[in-house]
Amino acid sequence: MAQARRSERLGETIRALTFDVQGTCADFCRPMLRMGEAVNRAKSLDIDWGMFSAEWRGLYRTVLDEIIAGRRRWLRVDGIYRETLDMLLERRGLAAAFTAAERDALNGIWSRLDAWPDAVEGLGRLRQRFVTSTLSNAGMATMVAVVKHAGLPFDAILTAELAHIYKPAPAVYQLAVDYLGYRPDEIMMVACHKYDLAAARAFGMRTAFVSRPFEFGPGGQPDTAPEDWFDIHAEDFIGLAQALGA
Amino acid sequence: MAQARRSERLGETIRALTFDVQGTCADFCRPMLRMGEAVNRAKSLDIDWGMFSAEWRGLYRTVLDEIIAGRRRWLRVDGIYRETLDMLLERRGLAAAFTAAERDALNGIWSRLDAWPDAVEGLGRLRQRFVTSTLSNAGMATMVAVVKHAGLPFDAILTAELAHIYKPAPAVYQLAVDYLGYRPDEIMMVACHKYDLAAARAFGMRTAFVSRPFEFGPGGQPDTAPEDWFDIHAEDFIGLAQALGA
Repeated sequence: MAQARRSERLGETIRALTFDVQGTCADFCRPMLRMGEAVNRAKSLDIDWGMFSAEWRGLYRTVLDEIIAGRRRWLRVDGIYRETLDMLLERRGLAAAFTAAERDALNGIWSRLDAWPDAVEGLGRLRQRFVTSTLSNAGMATMVAVVKHAGLPFDAILTAELAHIYKPAPAVYQLAVDYLGYRPDEIMMVACHKYDLAAARAFGMRTAFVSRPFEFGPGGQPDTAPEDWFDIHAEDFIGLAQALGA
Repeated sequence: MAQARRSERLGETIRALTFDVQGTCADFCRPMLRMGEAVNRAKSLDIDWGMFSAEWRGLYRTVLDEIIAGRRRWLRVDGIYRETLDMLLERRGLAAAFTAAERDALNGIWSRLDAWPDAVEGLGRLRQRFVTSTLSNAGMATMVAVVKHAGLPFDAILTAELAHIYKPAPAVYQLAVDYLGYRPDEIMMVACHKYDLAAARAFGMRTAFVSRPFEFGPGGQPDTAPEDWFDIHAEDFIGLAQALGA
């Protein structure tokens, strides 16, 4: 009851919701496995695309962290994925198996994500009551493509590319204040990643954690445990809409 | 026939459409007159809001031109309207009649535009075939509010605020290239203002002129004459959708 009353009050003071997209609104795992099956068949390979994807994301994260730490110049996310794909293919002795054009096509997977089953309906309900926007680390053009491909209804597309720095840097959350026109405490960040919400909270925003237990596929074990500092902890976007009275 | 074949070919090569909004997608005149009537009634004034609006836009245009010419620092459009509203009320001897909060409320009219009757349906059809985005001189938060209020369906919101310069500067058109991810010749600028299309064309984009004969109200006489350099000249957004096979 206390939780429900608190959420209702939040629904009154919040004007805008900003969403992490990859993982939170959309699933990259199934599209990756579908693509991988087709590639294996076409090229008679037996790559384990679950492992491949995990390793690719790991390399991506390493480069991203170097940029965040200021040890590398800013590079757009699609550039990071493309560069680390080359590294990964080299490392696995697959460099000769893929042309540059084929690598570009593989890299396009990050624009062809599947909306989670609850995402379109939940976002549609939330958009009737709040201004809704992406707030993603992806590049702008990638995010426009992701949102269009997955059919996610948003009022605005904002990404870290507009700040030339990455979440969890405060300048990314500041984009929502500057370009949506609300105070930090009138904006709620929605994500399935705790680091993102912790940074949004430190910036002064409200936070909603949404569990995405299958973010990394059936075998993955993402951290979905509740934390007492979340303003809302929801099972999915329908639950989030209900919690906010939308 | 030649015109129709040319449009069909354009429909094949174009990937994205960018739209001027105030005037092109939405009408500011009727909301202004509605607001003006209410203000006159509430304050027992007899302001001619058609004239008031024309003078306000004239002052706005003067400041905008100073910024474009580099004689003034960049200022967001809502700031320009707010500053020129003060000038206008002073000039008309009405400075004592409106508090600062009331002036802020008047200034909000630029976020509460009416979609033209064809705009929502036409944009909806075009969006099924193309990536669609605003490319407006307004500020980002104002544009998000305009699009939400008027129910205009877009894939992305881009405005000159992201470049800190105004159309017709090339840097504004470059936003569409950078953030939608297409070449200039794959993007079509849609506007009811020739200066905007001339600049887009010089930048390498395709151009569609849409007539908005009532942009300045029943007495206004905007220049809607066809030019041979327009790629498309349409009566409204339905006509534009038909011309592009959408």
